[in-house]
Amino acid sequence: MPNFHKAEAKVVQELKDIAHRLRIHSITSTQASKSGHPTSCASIAEIMSVLYFHTMRYKLSTPRDASSDRLILSKGHAAPILYAAWAEAGLFPVEDLQNLRKIDSDLEGHPTPRLNFIDVGTGSLGQGVAVGCGMAYVGKYFDKAAYRTYVIVGDGESAEGSIWESMNFAGHYGLDNLCVIFDVNRLGQSDPTCLQHKVEVYRKRAESFGFNAIVVDGHDVEELLKAFYEASITKDKPTALIAKTFKGKFFPNIEDLENWHGKPLGDKADEVIKHLNGLIHNHGPLQISPQKPLQDDVPVVTLGNVKLSQPPAYKLGESVATRLAYGTALAKIAANHPRVIALDGDTKNSTFSDKLKNAYPDRYVECFIAEQNLVGVAIGAACRDRTIAFVSTFATFFTRAFDQIRMGAISQTNVNFVGSHCGVSIGEDGPSQMGLEDIALFRTIPGSTVFYPSDAVSCERAVELAANTKGVCFIRTSRPNTAILYGNDDTFEIGKLRVVKQSAEDTVLLIGAGVTLYEALDAANQMEKAGVHARVLDLFTIKPIDRDGIIKNAKECGGRIVTVEDHYKEGGVGEAVMSAVADQRFIVKQLAVPTLPRSGPPTVLLDMFGISARHVVAAAQEILKL
Amino acid sequence: MPNFHKAEAKVVQELKDIAHRLRIHSITSTQASKSGHPTSCASIAEIMSVLYFHTMRYKLSTPRDASSDRLILSKGHAAPILYAAWAEAGLFPVEDLQNLRKIDSDLEGHPTPRLNFIDVGTGSLGQGVAVGCGMAYVGKYFDKAAYRTYVIVGDGESAEGSIWESMNFAGHYGLDNLCVIFDVNRLGQSDPTCLQHKVEVYRKRAESFGFNAIVVDGHDVEELLKAFYEASITKDKPTALIAKTFKGKFFPNIEDLENWHGKPLGDKADEVIKHLNGLIHNHGPLQISPQKPLQDDVPVVTLGNVKLSQPPAYKLGESVATRLAYGTALAKIAANHPRVIALDGDTKNSTFSDKLKNAYPDRYVECFIAEQNLVGVAIGAACRDRTIAFVSTFATFFTRAFDQIRMGAISQTNVNFVGSHCGVSIGEDGPSQMGLEDIALFRTIPGSTVFYPSDAVSCERAVELAANTKGVCFIRTSRPNTAILYGNDDTFEIGKLRVVKQSAEDTVLLIGAGVTLYEALDAANQMEKAGVHARVLDLFTIKPIDRDGIIKNAKECGGRIVTVEDHYKEGGVGEAVMSAVADQRFIVKQLAVPTLPRSGPPTVLLDMFGISARHVVAAAQEILKL
Repeated sequence: MPNFHKAEAKVVQELKDIAHRLRIHSITSTQASKSGHPTSCASIAEIMSVLYFHTMRYKLSTPRDASSDRLILSKGHAAPILYAAWAEAGLFPVEDLQNLRKIDSDLEGHPTPRLNFIDVGTGSLGQGVAVGCGMAYVGKYFDKAAYRTYVIVGDGESAEGSIWESMNFAGHYGLDNLCVIFDVNRLGQSDPTCLQHKVEVYRKRAESFGFNAIVVDGHDVEELLKAFYEASITKDKPTALIAKTFKGKFFPNIEDLENWHGKPLGDKADEVIKHLNGLIHNHGPLQISPQKPLQDDVPVVTLGNVKLSQPPAYKLGESVATRLAYGTALAKIAANHPRVIALDGDTKNSTFSDKLKNAYPDRYVECFIAEQNLVGVAIGAACRDRTIAFVSTFATFFTRAFDQIRMGAISQTNVNFVGSHCGVSIGEDGPSQMGLEDIALFRTIPGSTVFYPSDAVSCERAVELAANTKGVCFIRTSRPNTAILYGNDDTFEIGKLRVVKQSAEDTVLLIGAGVTLYEALDAANQMEKAGVHARVLDLFTIKPIDRDGIIKNAKECGGRIVTVEDHYKEGGVGEAVMSAVADQRFIVKQLAVPTLPRSGPPTVLLDMFGISARHVVAAAQEILKL
Repeated sequence: MPNFHKAEAKVVQELKDIAHRLRIHSITSTQASKSGHPTSCASIAEIMSVLYFHTMRYKLSTPRDASSDRLILSKGHAAPILYAAWAEAGLFPVEDLQNLRKIDSDLEGHPTPRLNFIDVGTGSLGQGVAVGCGMAYVGKYFDKAAYRTYVIVGDGESAEGSIWESMNFAGHYGLDNLCVIFDVNRLGQSDPTCLQHKVEVYRKRAESFGFNAIVVDGHDVEELLKAFYEASITKDKPTALIAKTFKGKFFPNIEDLENWHGKPLGDKADEVIKHLNGLIHNHGPLQISPQKPLQDDVPVVTLGNVKLSQPPAYKLGESVATRLAYGTALAKIAANHPRVIALDGDTKNSTFSDKLKNAYPDRYVECFIAEQNLVGVAIGAACRDRTIAFVSTFATFFTRAFDQIRMGAISQTNVNFVGSHCGVSIGEDGPSQMGLEDIALFRTIPGSTVFYPSDAVSCERAVELAANTKGVCFIRTSRPNTAILYGNDDTFEIGKLRVVKQSAEDTVLLIGAGVTLYEALDAANQMEKAGVHARVLDLFTIKPIDRDGIIKNAKECGGRIVTVEDHYKEGGVGEAVMSAVADQRFIVKQLAVPTLPRSGPPTVLLDMFGISARHVVAAAQEILKL
């Protein structure tokens, strides 16, 4: 390393001192909260000290400034030392650390973006590297800026495959602005980790995934300084810093011992603090300060007000799959906003996200078959409002990333998810490929918006609305072609249903979505011939649901509702409707896929699993008798 | 390799011929079904030929015999060649292959255990190695038998982190009876894979995860024979066979070309088949047969009729966490059945699965922090009725393995899942650790049973019932202590609710579960003082739900129901109840966690998020006005 200059001895000593200060804060704050993970903090004290007071460049005035370096504490249970680092750096008074985990403090048990210096929630393990990859990808390829991204990973969580999906991604895309620090402290929650202190195994793994790997003593400030410098000058490869550390380092009679995970030091605290104070040279004000970003080289990005470059252009009665309309709309909003990006996991020619790739190759991120990383990269890419990210794969494969999506809500992400190939209507590929629980999944996400467009026009508008909507959005698209129902200039709103068939004599309300909306319409037309009038609704969004609209229409239909959906019964459209009308004395009959389906032609499957027009007619007849 | 004898030339030729026959079947069957993945079959034709006609030992009469070698086709979309191999081996007529993907054939688009030669459903990628690990772990440590397990993995799916979780597990436990074959055919669905033909990278990765790695030409029968032999004599390490192959191998003008994923050959089929026929030497009856198992060395295992070794032993009013009762019951059923096993992901001292480990160390499988592999290993371990597997972690971390659990239903698994730390009642650790969507998740699983015991007695019985129940079972346990409600001899049934408070004057029905059952009881007691009588129900199982019991009790309470649960609104207890009473003109008021929660003391959080007794009283008062 040609230009590495050793730090002055007094700087080194100061960084050592800061590490001990951070340890003490981690102890006292968890003593105050009577819970927390001080020993997991102690193993990364020198790493935090060096990062926050020497290596990282950031604006203390605006902690999430676009030009600042990013740090993700993937091992989120070490939150107390992260909070302590920011406090010691000067963001807020160190006294506030004593409010850890209190009901009126945002210094929660695990970090969340309620705090102005946190980008994403962590605490469910193994997710930080994916988020870091998203940030680093944006930094290198979209922002083309100098900021760097650091991720601190616990050795316990290194068993999570999601880490290795992300390592593969980082290696493949040569994210040299990314540095992943493995805190190899040997001990998990209930036992030693499977690799314990085998740092050479970590090195080999990291290297085989395309990283520059450096093994260091994680408690040696000088080694850390040198390693971070090496990381900063390594080109075309991300760096993995394999830090051999000890859990509870410098805590006498606790260091490297089992049964000290996730508990405050209790009556041992005073003695340990006394010992740590004895190691500190400078008890006065800090002599070093964090470094500011070298340059303000990050382009200004303004999100919001995203529009289709051209309105939908379909003919009534024409047949177009909503998945295709998704691709069309995606390319249209991308034409109007340079930060609309798409990510997919090698299904782009099925989800039609390839329409964006074909139009703007640089704004498509291929994430290969690794859905957890796919979602995490999108969440990282959307941080600090750098991009408007659309993630697509088969609807059912989002189950693979449920934990990441769940954490996305904690992270206050605005990522948009688009799941194609929903339901039995995909046909011959069979149940492993059918999204039959995706509505249930996305409905559970706090603050989510769940679109289920039934035709191409409304699907294009769903994409446009999603791009402008805060929180997690999900758009469920279908594989088969469906008829255009709406005019190209029709307007759609979140939480506003559309009546697609009605008369003054309606006695039953039918609610379908996607392919089953057409079954409901077919059923209504059949019943009409027999003199029974049914109203048909298209909810457009399943969440928020148009409660008032459903109740009004249901009242006009005698309080009788039949729902029909290509999804399992649980958590789907039917239950969403029931929930909306729970305080009304209505009756609801739900048609949904009742059991595990199988391979077969789509129309045969719709009928076999009870969601075809014939079954809607039967259900309506039945409910009319109640 | 001391004892490797080269196969005779005629055997080698026969294996080559069989590979081509399998290719032809893959083409003709996908031509008949007009969909499928013939090119993905072609790359593994020699691998399948060698495995099924030389290397693997199995009983054709009983394909899932305990003593037979196992094969999991992780890349399930290559199903046609798997079916073809079994047909050529003689299990069923090759003519049946033409029924691929038909509505009345079990030769589905992706393999499922509807077929008597399939152990688990595949098709969602990256799951096969975990299942194989479970089988191999059982073979090596429980059965101590000679059978071997083979897993064929696609290179595209090797990007899935789940693969690497499992590789880590296999390496750690030295599963030398496991052989993972990587079919490195270079091409994914929509693009080349990220590693293309870099077989040396695969080798390094596999070695760093503890495998004996062998790189071979996957189309060279002799190399394959030798590599499988080497695998069979390698001790204390699993083997990874890195097979360099070509997608569409031996399909002229298709081999190694893009845009041939997942489509039949169409009008090119005849020409390709003609070419392949030209490569076959022996067009007559096969001259070689599959090998039978060397020995019947597998112990007989009888599942069913599992009982607690001792009844619950609590005192009424005593306070015990249901998570602790889980551990107690687990050890008790293990005492009575030698094949009850427990698996956990480094949370055993929180879920209390360590009670089984302490009693029977050999029957506990530590899976470290890797929930996807954890679930997959359990599914593999339960295959062929070898074990009764209980998997535990925090309830919310099962979101990490939703895809594996979903596929578990397709696999007809009987694995039992136990999720602790549900809801806001865990307190200070905050939302990342709170299970608030687990009921929604497990309710969507076809055929699942969802237990939500509220006290330790019913929790012990839930464990006993789960051990004897087919399909996916989920038991939701709570962190805080709750009072004993039931007598030690009380009986519990799946789908049977318990009335915990009632009178003849009840005007509103309260339904709680876990900690909120006590809030409901508290509310009922408070209201009673004001002269309002409420009935309180404990559902015990949320799925199946006691529909008749709820309707009967609700009718006796004026058709007014208040549900209260420590879970998000969507897909939880409230919606399950609404669904059960949908055809009744009842009114239901649901109390559930309405937004993203935060860190804080449990009782404060219950109140802050609207599910404490005070809120139940208010909801009851409100519903009484409707």
